[in-house]
Amino acid sequence: MITEDKLVQRIARAIPSQIGHGTEDVWLGVGDDAAILRSRGGFEWVISCDSFVEDVHFFRDIHPPDSVGYKALVRATSDLVAMGAKPSIFLLALTLHRDYTGKWLDGFLAGMGRAARLLEMRLIGGDTTVGRIISASLSVFGQVREGQAVTRSCAHRGDRIYVSGRLGRAQLGLEMLRATVGSKIRASSTTPRIVSIGHNGATLGKLLRPHLYPRIRVALGMWLGRNRIASAMMDLSDGLSTDLGRLCEASGVGAKLWAEQIPRVRVPQAALGSAPRKKLDPLQMALHGGDDYELLFTVPRRNEPKVRRASARSRKAGLPELTCIGEIVRVTPQFRSDGGSRILLIAEDGQAKPLEPAGWDPFRK
Amino acid sequence: MITEDKLVQRIARAIPSQIGHGTEDVWLGVGDDAAILRSRGGFEWVISCDSFVEDVHFFRDIHPPDSVGYKALVRATSDLVAMGAKPSIFLLALTLHRDYTGKWLDGFLAGMGRAARLLEMRLIGGDTTVGRIISASLSVFGQVREGQAVTRSCAHRGDRIYVSGRLGRAQLGLEMLRATVGSKIRASSTTPRIVSIGHNGATLGKLLRPHLYPRIRVALGMWLGRNRIASAMMDLSDGLSTDLGRLCEASGVGAKLWAEQIPRVRVPQAALGSAPRKKLDPLQMALHGGDDYELLFTVPRRNEPKVRRASARSRKAGLPELTCIGEIVRVTPQFRSDGGSRILLIAEDGQAKPLEPAGWDPFRK
Repeated sequence: MITEDKLVQRIARAIPSQIGHGTEDVWLGVGDDAAILRSRGGFEWVISCDSFVEDVHFFRDIHPPDSVGYKALVRATSDLVAMGAKPSIFLLALTLHRDYTGKWLDGFLAGMGRAARLLEMRLIGGDTTVGRIISASLSVFGQVREGQAVTRSCAHRGDRIYVSGRLGRAQLGLEMLRATVGSKIRASSTTPRIVSIGHNGATLGKLLRPHLYPRIRVALGMWLGRNRIASAMMDLSDGLSTDLGRLCEASGVGAKLWAEQIPRVRVPQAALGSAPRKKLDPLQMALHGGDDYELLFTVPRRNEPKVRRASARSRKAGLPELTCIGEIVRVTPQFRSDGGSRILLIAEDGQAKPLEPAGWDPFRK
Repeated sequence: MITEDKLVQRIARAIPSQIGHGTEDVWLGVGDDAAILRSRGGFEWVISCDSFVEDVHFFRDIHPPDSVGYKALVRATSDLVAMGAKPSIFLLALTLHRDYTGKWLDGFLAGMGRAARLLEMRLIGGDTTVGRIISASLSVFGQVREGQAVTRSCAHRGDRIYVSGRLGRAQLGLEMLRATVGSKIRASSTTPRIVSIGHNGATLGKLLRPHLYPRIRVALGMWLGRNRIASAMMDLSDGLSTDLGRLCEASGVGAKLWAEQIPRVRVPQAALGSAPRKKLDPLQMALHGGDDYELLFTVPRRNEPKVRRASARSRKAGLPELTCIGEIVRVTPQFRSDGGSRILLIAEDGQAKPLEPAGWDPFRK
């Protein structure tokens, strides 16, 4: 019979964990009523939490369990990265379905363990229980030098708006997954079988990866914070139209976005038959698609040369490009007066239109 | 239409919250990607997390929503109290059912707000999403002076075992609730209607309270830690037989419990008709009933006079009694050799029997 105590041991074996007494920051980890953190002088703890819920964020029969475990940790940690923090430790509150405590759980823990090793994070505690649906709530902790965290609320008029990488890639992966569910994808405990589609050598696996196993920009976030290059920053989890709106709201400003500048997913010809063409429009996926976990940040003009030099270096090293996609402006009557939008999208023909937040919201039916 | 952003504002209004920049410990609270903690020199952060899940820990149609909100915070915080910490802040990861975002949610938030005010805690961040079942995962943070946290792992042979209060009261409340579900209890947004049962003036409300609105022993936990009176401590959340077993396991010791010393719930005559008499046996409820959140702690003999004096003062002030219920011993062959039990229960007739862990375990069917 599975017991809570045995399950905790199994989790602590599968995921890099601090068990009992440690040194440095974590004075006491897994195994007591609570964990104990000590603080290094001159550093702050940055903390956030995030839930990953069955039938909302993932589907038990569609998503490989190791993707569920991997993504649960990565997307929570993305919020720390968006503050410029170095991720460090986490708590896992895991609700499990009774029938999924065997192989499925092994896959889930393997995925979470892999993400923890990639991010150099350790599990220091948590809670396990049963439930009718599977759910993982993670509390993540990172560190930043005192005063170097980058918030959402200090974007100023005239600052340039940048994003890392290419937007809409996770949305394309989701559409591809939707189109192939049940036939080509096998919910195994390892990565899904890579299936070739089309003639151009593009593989389904490659297209699915940004949705199943997203990357987050730890080094970039820390660089932007440490060198005080970004005035405001957040991660793109719910989509550019929603998240940039939040950044503007927090900073009391508006934004102009240049549509043609927005770096967007490339849709391989072979993929176009898989889903309605309207759903695969690259600009729409870049504007409203969630789950990219790229960084959105604003840069005072005096810091732009540094960003451009870094982006050129990044490109050479195969790291994400940094692209200027707009600028921070004062909110004028040109923006919608009912307060719905703080963003003007400038189309390729020069026409300006308010951009409504239309990214992911779990409460939208 | 409800949106995630509006919901966050509603939560922050209903529960004492740190929004944006604060002073002292919480440099940044609700409203950004993450919160930021600063540390006072000489203090440590004590952290824990706990999930409260529909159909496992509570039932939407049975438990008043304000009890759900109240208890979710109190039971999570109990783990901090069990370390001797002063509770301070928390993160709320809330999964809501679409149809329960109105009055039910108001009741839930009112209950959680009341618990937060009682415990002098502030909300500093969280996450909200929808799901097929309601679930609240809380990460709670407290502070303790460096080196003063009381762990589970330092109980020594010869130490006396103490508990606060009277055990089994929450279990009796649960049995009473089970016996009256649907008829006498109304799932209102306030406390349940108090219904008289029997002739002795005992009210159902009074019997239900330890189950619906448990108290936790913040001042006692801090006193035991600050004065280094307890050698080990934990809270009784899953039942004495299970939790004392965990304390013994962590400390590498065994325990002798004197059955007649265990302070147990009083079952009013009038209640005896409500449930099978076997279920209402006070000793069994005290040994295996969960949810009491009383403190279980071990005391080196040299500290016993302090505990006895404190207990006498407590009794006068109407605070919980502290009762010695046994002592820490070496694990001998008298204990079960298969490793199942580390506790010997000495019955009133002097007979010793191994006590198996039979408290609450969510994975037990």
